[in-house]
Order: sequence, then C-alpha cells, then structure tokens
Amino acid sequence: MTVDLHLDFTSDNSSGAHPAILQAIVDANSGHAAAYGADEWTRRAERTLAEVFEREVAVFLVATGTAANALALSAVTDPWGAILCHEFAHIAADECGAPEFFSAGAKLVGLPGEAGKITPAALNDALALMPRGVVKQVQPQALSLSQASECGTLYTPAEIAALADIAHAAGMAVHMDGARFANALVALGVTPAEMSWKAGVDVLSFGATKNGALACEAVIFFDPDRAKTFAYRRKRGGHTLSKGRLIGCQMEAYLAGGLWLDLAARANARAAELEAGLAVLPGVRLPWKRAINEVFAILPKAMHARMTAAGARYHPWTPRALVPQQRPGPDEVFVRLIPSFSTDPAAVAALISAARG
Amino acid sequence: MTVDLHLDFTSDNSSGAHPAILQAIVDANSGHAAAYGADEWTRRAERTLAEVFEREVAVFLVATGTAANALALSAVTDPWGAILCHEFAHIAADECGAPEFFSAGAKLVGLPGEAGKITPAALNDALALMPRGVVKQVQPQALSLSQASECGTLYTPAEIAALADIAHAAGMAVHMDGARFANALVALGVTPAEMSWKAGVDVLSFGATKNGALACEAVIFFDPDRAKTFAYRRKRGGHTLSKGRLIGCQMEAYLAGGLWLDLAARANARAAELEAGLAVLPGVRLPWKRAINEVFAILPKAMHARMTAAGARYHPWTPRALVPQQRPGPDEVFVRLIPSFSTDPAAVAALISAARG
Amino acid sequence: MTVDLHLDFTSDNSSGAHPAILQAIVDANSGHAAAYGADEWTRRAERTLAEVFEREVAVFLVATGTAANALALSAVTDPWGAILCHEFAHIAADECGAPEFFSAGAKLVGLPGEAGKITPAALNDALALMPRGVVKQVQPQALSLSQASECGTLYTPAEIAALADIAHAAGMAVHMDGARFANALVALGVTPAEMSWKAGVDVLSFGATKNGALACEAVIFFDPDRAKTFAYRRKRGGHTLSKGRLIGCQMEAYLAGGLWLDLAARANARAAELEAGLAVLPGVRLPWKRAINEVFAILPKAMHARMTAAGARYHPWTPRALVPQQRPGPDEVFVRLIPSFSTDPAAVAALISAARG
Amino acid sequence: MTVDLHLDFTSDNSSGAHPAILQAIVDANSGHAAAYGADEWTRRAERTLAEVFEREVAVFLVATGTAANALALSAVTDPWGAILCHEFAHIAADECGAPEFFSAGAKLVGLPGEAGKITPAALNDALALMPRGVVKQVQPQALSLSQASECGTLYTPAEIAALADIAHAAGMAVHMDGARFANALVALGVTPAEMSWKAGVDVLSFGATKNGALACEAVIFFDPDRAKTFAYRRKRGGHTLSKGRLIGCQMEAYLAGGLWLDLAARANARAAELEAGLAVLPGVRLPWKRAINEVFAILPKAMHARMTAAGARYHPWTPRALVPQQRPGPDEVFVRLIPSFSTDPAAVAALISAARG
Repeated sequence: MTVDLHLDFTSDNSSGAHPAILQAIVDANSGHAAAYGADEWTRRAERTLAEVFEREVAVFLVATGTAANALALSAVTDPWGAILCHEFAHIAADECGAPEFFSAGAKLVGLPGEAGKITPAALNDALALMPRGVVKQVQPQALSLSQASECGTLYTPAEIAALADIAHAAGMAVHMDGARFANALVALGVTPAEMSWKAGVDVLSFGATKNGALACEAVIFFDPDRAKTFAYRRKRGGHTLSKGRLIGCQMEAYLAGGLWLDLAARANARAAELEAGLAVLPGVRLPWKRAINEVFAILPKAMHARMTAAGARYHPWTPRALVPQQRPGPDEVFVRLIPSFSTDPAAVAALISAARG
Repeated sequence: MTVDLHLDFTSDNSSGAHPAILQAIVDANSGHAAAYGADEWTRRAERTLAEVFEREVAVFLVATGTAANALALSAVTDPWGAILCHEFAHIAADECGAPEFFSAGAKLVGLPGEAGKITPAALNDALALMPRGVVKQVQPQALSLSQASECGTLYTPAEIAALADIAHAAGMAVHMDGARFANALVALGVTPAEMSWKAGVDVLSFGATKNGALACEAVIFFDPDRAKTFAYRRKRGGHTLSKGRLIGCQMEAYLAGGLWLDLAARANARAAELEAGLAVLPGVRLPWKRAINEVFAILPKAMHARMTAAGARYHPWTPRALVPQQRPGPDEVFVRLIPSFSTDPAAVAALISAARG
Repeated sequence: MTVDLHLDFTSDNSSGAHPAILQAIVDANSGHAAAYGADEWTRRAERTLAEVFEREVAVFLVATGTAANALALSAVTDPWGAILCHEFAHIAADECGAPEFFSAGAKLVGLPGEAGKITPAALNDALALMPRGVVKQVQPQALSLSQASECGTLYTPAEIAALADIAHAAGMAVHMDGARFANALVALGVTPAEMSWKAGVDVLSFGATKNGALACEAVIFFDPDRAKTFAYRRKRGGHTLSKGRLIGCQMEAYLAGGLWLDLAARANARAAELEAGLAVLPGVRLPWKRAINEVFAILPKAMHARMTAAGARYHPWTPRALVPQQRPGPDEVFVRLIPSFSTDPAAVAALISAARG
Repeated sequence: MTVDLHLDFTSDNSSGAHPAILQAIVDANSGHAAAYGADEWTRRAERTLAEVFEREVAVFLVATGTAANALALSAVTDPWGAILCHEFAHIAADECGAPEFFSAGAKLVGLPGEAGKITPAALNDALALMPRGVVKQVQPQALSLSQASECGTLYTPAEIAALADIAHAAGMAVHMDGARFANALVALGVTPAEMSWKAGVDVLSFGATKNGALACEAVIFFDPDRAKTFAYRRKRGGHTLSKGRLIGCQMEAYLAGGLWLDLAARANARAAELEAGLAVLPGVRLPWKRAINEVFAILPKAMHARMTAAGARYHPWTPRALVPQQRPGPDEVFVRLIPSFSTDPAAVAALISAARG
C-alpha cells in the first residue's frame, strides 16, 4: 500500500497505543502471573478506577467496546426489556445486534433527537407509549446515553441527571456508553464522578481503546450489587482473557498520572484546530458546535476532492444526522473527521492546507 | 506478594508472550492502520495460515479460546443441534456454557472415554441413541475433538479420521479444539494438514495464546463456504477488535520462521524432563503416557507438601479423569503440572529436587 | 359480573368458537389418535390448505398467533438479521419481543407509513440506510406485512407485489401476518393465492382464531424447502401439541365448505353496518376507509360516555396512528371497535343507538 | 386406516378429552370473554388450585407440557446455570432442547439412577463436581424431579424432601415435572401439598393433558414472588392463548369434584390389571414395581408378535433404562404400555389374551 496514511482521520481506532501504554504491556510481559483477571495489574487498575470515580465500584475489563456495552446492558435488562437510546447510538446502529444477543433478545428503542442527543421530552414521550405491566409490550428497563454522542456532542451533568431522573422514576437503569468518556470529560471540565454516578449513571462502558490503549475497556458498576453475576456473563461471552494482565496493564497505564486526560485533551485540541481551520474556509458548514475530537463538516465537493487527492482519509457521514434544512446540497458532502491523541498538529495543518487548495 | 512464582506450573497461560511476539506488538504499534481486522498484519497472518495448512482457508482471529470454540461451534450447529464431545472437554466443563450461549441453546453431549479420548465405539454408541429426524430429540450436528485432550493425550491422524468418518457419515461437522494444537503437532511429528483437514476436521480453533502469544486464537474453516456468516457472528459477539493489528501481528509473529513449532517443542521438552524426573521417585504414579506439555501425576502427599513448601504452584486434578483402580489413595494427591515455552529447565530441575526432598 | 358483554367490541378474540368448529372438536375427541400432529385431522387440514392456496405448501399448526409469527420469522431471519415491518405492526408492538426471542436476537426495524401501511418509498428508504455486507450492521432479511394492518387497512395484491419485489431484490424473504387473513381476503375479493404467494409472500401466518376457531393458526411456507427445520423450531418452542387433533380439527372445520370466508364476510358486514351508522352521527370522524371488521373512529367524548354507559366495551386507540391534523381534540376520543363473526346485527344497532343517544 | 386402535397403549396422549372436560369447552364457548387469560374460568381454576394445594399459589396455564417445563425452569435458572435432572428425564431427552432455548442456554446435567430416579448420593456426587462461584463452570441452580419418572416410578414425599433439602442447601430451586402428577398422587395416597411444596418443591409443571384434558397444563409457583416476571416469559414464548377460556375451562373441569383423581385412579387401575395379567405369563419379565399407569415389560418376541398381530400398539423402550443384567436377550423385546383414563378394561383383557396366545 502506497497510500500515505498520515492524513488518516477515519477514526481514533486507527491509531496504535500510546508509548506509555505499549511500554506497560512490555513491562507486564515478564514472568508468571495469575490468569483470568486475577493478576496484580488488573487489581491495581480496579483500585485506581475506584479512586478516579471516588467510590467503591465493581470493574470488569474486556477487550472491545461492543463487549463492554452489550455485557453491561445485559446485566440491567431482561430479555423482555427495552433499552431506550438515541436512534443513531452505536449500540443500535453499529454493533450488529450485540445488545440483543447478550440480553437474549431485548428490544432497542431508538429515540429521535437533534445532534445525537436525547431530550427529556423525547424520553418522556417514548415512556408514555410504553405501558408498564402490560405483558404484550416489552418493558422499559434501561436508558443508554452515549457520552459523547454519535454526533460528537455532549450531555452536561445536569442534562444527564435530568434524563436519569426520568429513567429512575420509571424503574430503569442508566447506562453510559463512554467509548470516548475521556474526551467528553476534559471537554466538560468536570470530574468522572460528576459525569457518571453523581448524575445518575448506574453502569458505565469506560473506553480506553480509542484514547491510547490497544484493546481495553472497562465495565464499571457504581452499585457493586448489580454486578454479582457479571463474571459469569463475561466468561460465557468469551470475554475473560486468560492472560488478563494484557488488559489490566493497559488500564493501569492509561490512568497513571492522568495520562488518559492528557491524551483526550490532545485529541480534542487537534479537533479544535481542525474545526478552526475549516470554519473559515469558504463553503464549509459546521452543523454542530464541536465538543470533543470529532469534527462534522459539510464540505464543498471540490474541497473534498482536494483533500482526498492529498491523501486524506475520513468517513462520509449520514445526512440523516442533520435536520433537513442543514442537509448537504448536490455539490456538498457531509463528513466526519476524527483526530486521535497521536495526530500530529502538522497533519491537521496539512489537511487544512489541502482543503484550502 | 512474596510468593516465588518461578515454580509456576499452574498453566501455560500464566506466562507472558514470547519476546518475538511482544516485539511484533511493539513494531505493529506505529502509525495508522485499518480497523476491525482489515489491517495488513492480519492479512499476512491469514496468508501464512493458508500456507501452513496447504490450502485455502477462511481465518478469523479472536482474543480468547472460549470465543474461538463457541463461535466456531455456533457456525456448524443449529440451536436444536447436539455437539458431541468428551465429557471432560473444555467446551463442556470449563467455558461456563459459552457454546450454549453462542449457539442459542444447542446441547453438549459428553461422551465417556479413558484418558480424555473419545473412541469410535463411544461415538457410535452415542449416535445410536440419537434418532435422526425425530423432533423430540436434538440432532447430532457437530463432533468436537480436543487435540490435545484434557488429559494431555493425543489422537493420531488415523484416530481423528476414524472419528471424523463416523461423524461425517452421520451428517455432522467436525470441530477441533486446538488450544494446544502446536504442542500436539510437534509431539506427533505430522503436518498441520495431516492433523486437521486431511483427517476430516472441518473447523479448527487454532490456539496461540498458551504457546507464546498474549491473546490470539484463530478460527479456521477449511471449507470457506461454511464461514460465510462468521463475520457477523464475531462482530455480534463483541469479538472483532477495533485495533485488529494487535491480534494480527501476534499471529504473524507466532507463525514466522516456525516459531510456534519451536515454542511447542520447548514446552514439551520441559514436560518430558519433568516426567522423567518424577517417574523415578518412589511413590509417584503416572497414569498416562505423557504426550505434550502436560504432566499428570499421582503424588504422595508428603511429596506434594515438599513441593508446595518450595514455592511450587500447580493444580490438583479431578480423580474422575482416572479409571477407578488408578484413583489416589488417602495419602496421595492427583495433580496436573504444565510447563510452558518459557519455563526454564532449571525450574523443572528445582521442582524435581523439591519433590525428591 | 353484571356487566352486559353483549356490546363487546374489544376484539374478535373475545368470541368463542363458531358452532361448527366447536362441533368438530367434539367429534374429533372420540377414540385414539396419533399424537404430536401426526393425526388425520391435521393431515386433512394440510391438504385442504394446499387446495385453498393452489399449490404445494408446508403447513405447521400452532395455537397462537404470536407463536405463528415468531416461529415463521425465525425460519427466515438470522440472529444478525433485521425484520422490516410497519412501526405499529403487532410483531413489533404487541408480542413482548417474541420475534426477538425466537430468532435469537434479530432486530425489528419499524417503518413509518400512514394508516398502518408500508409504502415502497419507505421500504426503499429503510433499505438505503442498511448497507449490505457491513458487519457492524444487522442485515435486512425479512419484510413482514400485516394483512390487514393494525389500522384495519389492506394492501392490494399489486401493492404486496410491489413491496415483495423490492424485498426479494434485496435478498429478503416476505412474511405476511395474516391474523385476519380471511377478513382481508373477502374484503378484496381475490383468491388466497393472489393475496399471498402470487404476490410474493414466502411464509404466511394464517389466522383462524379471531375468525371462528378457539386456538388455531397455521404457518404456511409456499416453498417447502424453507420449512425443513421448522418442526424442530416448533417442538423446541413448546408449540407442538401432544393431542394435535385439537388444532387439526379446528383448521379442517374452519376451511370446510368455505366456512372461513362466510365468517369473515359476516364480521366485515357488521363492521360496515357499524361504520355506516356512526358515519352519519354528528361529530363522528372516521380517519380511514374501513376495509375489514375493524372500525376506527374519533368520537365526541359525550358520545363515548353514552356508549360506555350502555355497556359497550371497546378499546381506546393510540392517536399516534393518526396523522397530526386528524388527532382527537380535547373533547374527542379515538377508539377501535371490532365486531366478530358472532356479533349480532342487533348488537351493532344497539351500539349505534347508544351512540346516537 | 384399517388398523384397530382399540388396543392403543402408546401413550396417554393418544386419548381425547374426558367427556366432562369436553363439555366444559362446549359450555365455555358461549358468549364473550376477556382475552389472554383474564377470563372467569381461568380465575376459578386458579382459585381451585390454591385450595387443592392448600396455600397461595401463582398459576399460569399453558397448552403443552414442554412449554410448562421450559418456562418454569427458565424462571429459576440463569443462562449460566445448570439444571440437574435424571439422565432420562423428559426435559433432557424429549423436548428438543426447549429448556436450553427458554433459559437462553442453561446446561442440563443428567444424573444416573436406577429406574429413572435420582438418589441423594447421585445428587451429592454431581454437586461435589460443580464448584460454586468458579466462573469457568456453570452453576447448579435447579433440580428437576420427574414425578412420575420416565420409568413410571415414584419418589415418596420423604424422598423428594431429602433431595430438595440438598438442593436448597446448595442454593438451588426445585422443579417438579408433574406431567403425570395425578397418577403419582393417587398411587402414593398423599395430598398434593405433601407431594409438592411441603416436600420442598418450588415450582411445579402440573399436567392435565395426559389425564383427561385436551391441551392444558399449569405452571404453579408456591412462592408467588418467584413468578413476578413469568407473564412476560409466557407471552414472549407465544404461550398466552388469546381465547384463554379454552384452557381455563379445561383446568376448572379437570379439578371439579376431584375428577382428576378419579381419572388417574382409573388409568392406574388399568395398568394394575395389565401388570397382573402379564406377570403370570411365561417369559414375561417386569423390571420395576409398577406405580402408576405405565407398565414396562420385557416380553418374548413371539408374544410381542402375537400382540402386534392382534392390533396392539405400544412403544419399544430403550434398554438403557435397565441395569445391564436385566436387559433383553436376543429373543426378547423391552416395551412400555400405557393405558389412559379412557382405556376400557376390556381392552386390557384383550391385550392380555393376545399376549397369552
């Protein structure tokens, strides 16, 4: 392949691991260690997560975000339950039915909402249509919020709390898909606790892979009682790594010294530079206020052609995510650009330069 | 922890990765790469596996052996199917129902057999009890052979073929759980093709984790047509790593230059030394002829106490695996000792020394 | 209970069986019969269905419509498949996730559409959003059409064919939920073949319970090859009655001499009378042209109160089924009224009289 | 068919309904009734069952025994749970994996035991091999006892209690498959309470179909708290009949005036006559003491030929159910003969006469 991937803005999962995390893998590799997650790296990562979240937590490390989400949701949803989420949520649109698989057939109910966000009104509307205790209908049991959303937008802790209050009042659990939890956190400038359990989140998919790890996600239960059977679910799903130190050490290094926050800040900064550079170019339209390391832009097709010719890689995005009046015209294209923690500022500059022509 | 783990013979998954595989991870980490298994390392590993097995194959990498087994079996078994395996098989006894989960409820039928091996007679007996086409009964659809078995014993290619012939004649697919495929292969001195598809194996769980990788297994279909929907199964199971290079590069390095065979030979050699050392000690009984890197021994309790006091770690094993007349007496203990590719000959010597007292 | 249920318009399943079908049960009860559907009544019902549909068919009798739908869909949808249906379809809204359960987690995708009907445009739009062969997304595998729809409206054979053509071109199977198949058929005045396989339906849930049976539905495959494993699905779902004559004889009697068509015509006629009577009353609004034995009406609340006071029973209906401009005002209520084959014309007249006040 | 089915001893499900139960269906058919089990017949049947069992119970009627068993077990077993039962139990051998399906993949563990019965020793042995809290292994969660067993033998209340005590001490629930509950009850001469909850049974599949109904079984929870989600399971399984009166009225009539006990006594009496008649014939061997309406016999082949020639129908039975020394020789056949409540004493006499030759 001669394509220069330097200008790769397809996803933050096209990066490798941060050197410190890679080094942690190298360091952890020596010698013998207890298998199946009973190793010391995992234990330390668990303890650090308890400190990070300022409370006792039950932590389960897995290697993929889909596993984290589907397992977490299965722990709080019966097979006859409904999981309410945004209609564009990753769990609903991009996981090939994993939540249905792990929950033995629960139903995902997609809620509408601008810019990838669920509103209290939309949640209340949906709940109003789901009679409780009527056996013909699946029962609402979980609300899943994506922080950040599929549109790169964020819920403030107050917004989370408003939604969680509705969910809890309806007897539902609140799950957060935090594949980009760190990016969201530094963008909001709040604490992990404020963005999760203090706002009503019951179970969190805490992502590290996109933000500097190689394959490491944590399912975090803020009420350990809810986690009692989770070890069986994980094992039965084939998600208990025998050499568990591989993920334990990644999580330990990810958290050590606040590395995770630094990396997220870097990725976000690159996105800010990219947004700023594109915003001033003629014909570029930015549908939403950028919050994290995702830039969504409606570009003139000619600009898109120049960028592609320069070797840039990024994904077109579905216009459905836009309100009708914002949708691209015949000479425009709607795209998503994602820098990662490892994206060089020079790459951002080069991309902007290519866009400018 | 002050326990010296030097004498760790609990499992070959208590080792880290071989340095060459670790280095492959380090090397693969640089730069951007296509996600979800579309990376170049994975492509190369797939091609090498085709060469290793001397035919076109469909390959799917995953991070755990349980995932490999359960996904592979789900691809060849309907929910109303039965999977016949040895009653002690890992899939039946140690995977928390993962095959049942991934197959949506197929039934595992455990067959008896000395030293962990299924015999043609036992297979025929079981099939005779399973009427075909009778809807009250689950239908035999897969035979799963563990190579090596849970007792560390091996099927010769001729034995595999004899069983596979029966299975195929009954319309069943043949799966091989090759968590220790390499150890078995070098012990038998045959080719990968001879020990798999030439003997009738249809789908193989090809393990690398226990033999030098950190987290890397391959599901290999010898008839790619059977694999048509497998990518959906893997994704839906949460087993498609986003940074797929992590497992692609492990498999590539594992196979490169025959490393996998060298590592297996080393582990087997350590087991041979261990067996030889124990065999001559008074009171030690070895129930089966050792074949790979697993030593099963009935030890005097006093010897076991000395070994443990010296810091040795290994698992007691279920006497059920023994025929009644071999079972341990009141002053004996039945144990399994597993050296890995990384076990130092000195550790084996030290263990024997401790046993001798 | 002193409530007079004479004016019961809640559902056609609040009636008992037609006397001829009840008599068939009485007649079939004598003597011994082969169990599990191997009885002669079932055989005769299967043959008659082949005649009714003018082709070879594979027929499986079950006792409930939910079983028929969920089992039928499971036979044509993989766990990673999507079933496209109207957003108000019974399978999506009223079966507690049974299709998800029987399919091991397939996803139901609800399509919008006025008056309960899917349009080719809506189907094409949905398919355009479902990339084929992308493992992150569930794959469209079945289109389920409700004939009649949840709004009591009908697809003409040409409309069915237009949708089926799109579905087949996309590699999907076409299922029809025919819980009120007979009512639809006589309303359209077409043949069973024209309303099913000639229009592209692959598998049909053929209802009898609502139209005169007590508990009897048939799953009919027009391509028997698709039905090869269905007997296992039915048995495993607990839907193979041991005394199968109970459902076999109902189906036989239901079809004998065209009883099923007579009963449907009766129920439809009662609905026509009801519609005609309500239509002329001041303040009554009828949102859709009635087609079968379901009358949907927006009533003045005062009228509703008079009807209820007279002992009438019927269900309020969700205003979501109406386009916004039709939705009930503060002094109105939206209701569904269903006469059955057994509804006396006098009951209809009494209801209209009560409505008139 | 010219075969005379008068001598049908294949199964008690080859009979129709008892006239009183058939009449109940006829009577219940008139007029309108609430759907989905909210009807008055079902309410009365529930109340009567509470009286019959002398305590508050949660009752759910379904149409098949497989549904009753699989749904009941799913309510007390997690997907990673194990259900311990006799190796020949109907749930393990004759339901096509229904328990696995409804439980989302739990594992059935078959225990050995003479004459179809589990012993405390066998249960303790099995539990000793199932470590609690080890995530590699499925966890024992339910014990299922068949009363009567597949061999027609019975557990005394004391025997049930001994097994239930072990199960409860291990944290398991106790299920009873009472497809022939009535036959067992009258044979033992105890009360329904003594044979169920007083002996430790937590959930019962209470059969009526084989003993005089057409299609009616009840799942009975003795602790209604365990039944909280059962209505969703039943609906989702397609087992909630819309015209629920059909099964409600059968159960009501089955229990009314002790009809169920009379019918069971009749069937048992026919079996006693059959056993007595066969016992005195040369060459006939009866492996177990008959308890209910099932006679198991090892017959000379010549006798078997005479019986068959006389039009008798019954099933050969698996010699596996016999201890080796009892198994049929080359000139013998092992058979099961089941008279039902409706079997005429003359039919039994004719069968014996044919056997005598």
